[in-house]
Amino acid sequence: MKQTHELMVPPRTIMTPGPVEAEPSVLRAMSSTILGQFDPNFTSIMNETMALLRHVLQTDNHWAFPVDGTSRAGIEAMLCSVIEEGDTVLVPCFGRFGYLLTEIAERCGGDVHVMECEWGTVFDPDHIVAKIDEVEPKVIAIVHGDTSTGRMQPLKKIGEACRERGVLLIVDAVATVAGTEVKTDEWMIDGLITGTQKCLSVPPGMAPLTYNDRIEAVLCQRKSIEKGLSTANTVVSNRRIRSNYLDLSQLQDYWSPARLNHHTEATSMLYGLYEGLRLILTEGLNARFKRHKLNEMALVAGLQAMKLKLFGDMSCKLPMVTCVVIPSNVNGEHVRTMLLEEFGIEIASSFGVLHGKIWRIGTMGYSCQKRNVLMTLAALEAVLIRQQAHISKGEAVQAAMDVYKEMEMTNPVGRT
Amino acid sequence: MKQTHELMVPPRTIMTPGPVEAEPSVLRAMSSTILGQFDPNFTSIMNETMALLRHVLQTDNHWAFPVDGTSRAGIEAMLCSVIEEGDTVLVPCFGRFGYLLTEIAERCGGDVHVMECEWGTVFDPDHIVAKIDEVEPKVIAIVHGDTSTGRMQPLKKIGEACRERGVLLIVDAVATVAGTEVKTDEWMIDGLITGTQKCLSVPPGMAPLTYNDRIEAVLCQRKSIEKGLSTANTVVSNRRIRSNYLDLSQLQDYWSPARLNHHTEATSMLYGLYEGLRLILTEGLNARFKRHKLNEMALVAGLQAMKLKLFGDMSCKLPMVTCVVIPSNVNGEHVRTMLLEEFGIEIASSFGVLHGKIWRIGTMGYSCQKRNVLMTLAALEAVLIRQQAHISKGEAVQAAMDVYKEMEMTNPVGRT
Repeated sequence: MKQTHELMVPPRTIMTPGPVEAEPSVLRAMSSTILGQFDPNFTSIMNETMALLRHVLQTDNHWAFPVDGTSRAGIEAMLCSVIEEGDTVLVPCFGRFGYLLTEIAERCGGDVHVMECEWGTVFDPDHIVAKIDEVEPKVIAIVHGDTSTGRMQPLKKIGEACRERGVLLIVDAVATVAGTEVKTDEWMIDGLITGTQKCLSVPPGMAPLTYNDRIEAVLCQRKSIEKGLSTANTVVSNRRIRSNYLDLSQLQDYWSPARLNHHTEATSMLYGLYEGLRLILTEGLNARFKRHKLNEMALVAGLQAMKLKLFGDMSCKLPMVTCVVIPSNVNGEHVRTMLLEEFGIEIASSFGVLHGKIWRIGTMGYSCQKRNVLMTLAALEAVLIRQQAHISKGEAVQAAMDVYKEMEMTNPVGRT
Repeated sequence: MKQTHELMVPPRTIMTPGPVEAEPSVLRAMSSTILGQFDPNFTSIMNETMALLRHVLQTDNHWAFPVDGTSRAGIEAMLCSVIEEGDTVLVPCFGRFGYLLTEIAERCGGDVHVMECEWGTVFDPDHIVAKIDEVEPKVIAIVHGDTSTGRMQPLKKIGEACRERGVLLIVDAVATVAGTEVKTDEWMIDGLITGTQKCLSVPPGMAPLTYNDRIEAVLCQRKSIEKGLSTANTVVSNRRIRSNYLDLSQLQDYWSPARLNHHTEATSMLYGLYEGLRLILTEGLNARFKRHKLNEMALVAGLQAMKLKLFGDMSCKLPMVTCVVIPSNVNGEHVRTMLLEEFGIEIASSFGVLHGKIWRIGTMGYSCQKRNVLMTLAALEAVLIRQQAHISKGEAVQAAMDVYKEMEMTNPVGRT
């Protein structure tokens, strides 16, 4: 073959809803040398990661560990381990990632009922509760923050209704964990999945999740141990979990003192997750949520000062994703390309009906910092001027700086 | 929570069948900053990784890419994308990982026929061909090198027989790729899966695989695009692939210019895979296979000089795994613990009927080097003396050094 060349990675400021920039110390942790998977030093790191994860996910659940795969691997692990052939599943969709839940639940054999609302809004919890009473599902699967529309669904009332009715509530909190409040136990969430590549600021490739004893009870009923000799299918009930790799009943034995030999844990990614979680708790969850809120406020102030229109219902805006309506005389992809090529700044487009209609600007994790917000506003303004857009000039960065200044006066300490 | 502490990773020499030590430049590559998944610089790395992979897997197949998960995620992706409810699958098992194939194939709904042979041996290919004619499977799934017993199954004759009969041959080559010849095309293998954490010397977490147009034809028949609105299951045939995350028909669209938005590629792991593959081709496949053979010869000479007995039929020995019978008066786990605690050297135990009976010493990838073999022999000898084992003293390292010296005289250049 032709001569190979060394890896080339240009500098980037990633202002998308993920993957975002990783914390530098996470990348350093990932370059640590490999430990064997049953080395006591490694199993200690596994146990400590579980403990850190419980704090970040605000839960007392015993089970809190990552699935070795990207976010949707964790979602599929949860759904395929819980949903059996013919189970009724209710999925309220307020964006693209809700439809992903329906897709996975259907492949698990679920009888899926979909609720929909206009993109840019979320559901009145009472409507979901009414639908629960109509459909009587075994499981509700719902997204907490859907990055495709930049909206966040309140969950507390839904959790209470599910618990009262014996319905299992499974939540995709990939976008929100470590960027805004996600109270697993207080909101009565039974199973919750997140991802590493968003507000955790760890590279993509792991899906931390947690679940309580209500879900564990389902897993125990469906558990099957890897077989040796038998060739007969008859010994296995049709309740068997369809996946081996994503079978939570086996994964929890791997993450227990039994150390069931399942997969080989992704050593370097686990190092990164450990360090990422450690940094989150060192910063403090509340401080981190405030930082995400502050940078969002500054970004929004800047965009509005530029006279750009924001998309969607502001009362349910996702704090770490800001959706901007693309001005009518501008080609959204040309703007994104120029931002990337000239400034090394990446913002996102969207999916489906919103593709070409909005940009999505992420302020997540390590990418969520004052310097990035100010530079993104300055660069976006320059590109829009270059593309003949009708915007207010010279206002955006000033407005954002005013937000930061005001905050510094009221709260002089803290990372921005 | 109590104070967190920085990641602690003690130095280790990993002489197991994986995960093994990663190449230092792979770890450095993995600490590069994150790129967005659709950044042209990142999609270039994806395309270049596919090209490198084709060379390492010795194939002209178009499809050659990693699944974001550990080896068994790749195995399950291949099997669940190909095997449909009721398909006849033949799995010849000569060790633990053959049984894993039966386990996964059964969960895919396959009608699985198992062939077995004594552990420590492999199959006469003619027996497998006869079984094919008896069972008439759609798919044969077989392990190339089973690390649990340290044996390697010759595949060429099986591949020819499968091709003549229209049977799909799927091979788990997790242990062997980049350590010994694996001729995907020449041996007429239709689908092949490997892992990163063995002879590739990349951390665990990815499963590179390849498949030809015979497998692609099955995928195309089973393809389904992620749905939006429909709640009816009736539009989907029962041929639909049961997994979303491991659906190769969707994954290949993600790895094509279409760039279907499926998962978020595991950025840092892909950097590592790219660098690992590049190093393999820079060393040269033949030189790398010779290095693995040389270190195996030196290790075997040392173990035999110590008067330790090797396990299994030497005519089908896996070059990168050497199985040693644990002397009768010695506790195998005490020896492993002392090696780890006193010398920082890890060797492996085994599974099932072989647990407590043999140790398994790996010589894979970056771990496969003269220094490691010599130090492992010296340390093992010291520990065995300490544990009162009856061995020849002072012979092992000398015998291994003689093997290296002889090789250096006949072949003065090359990495050992």
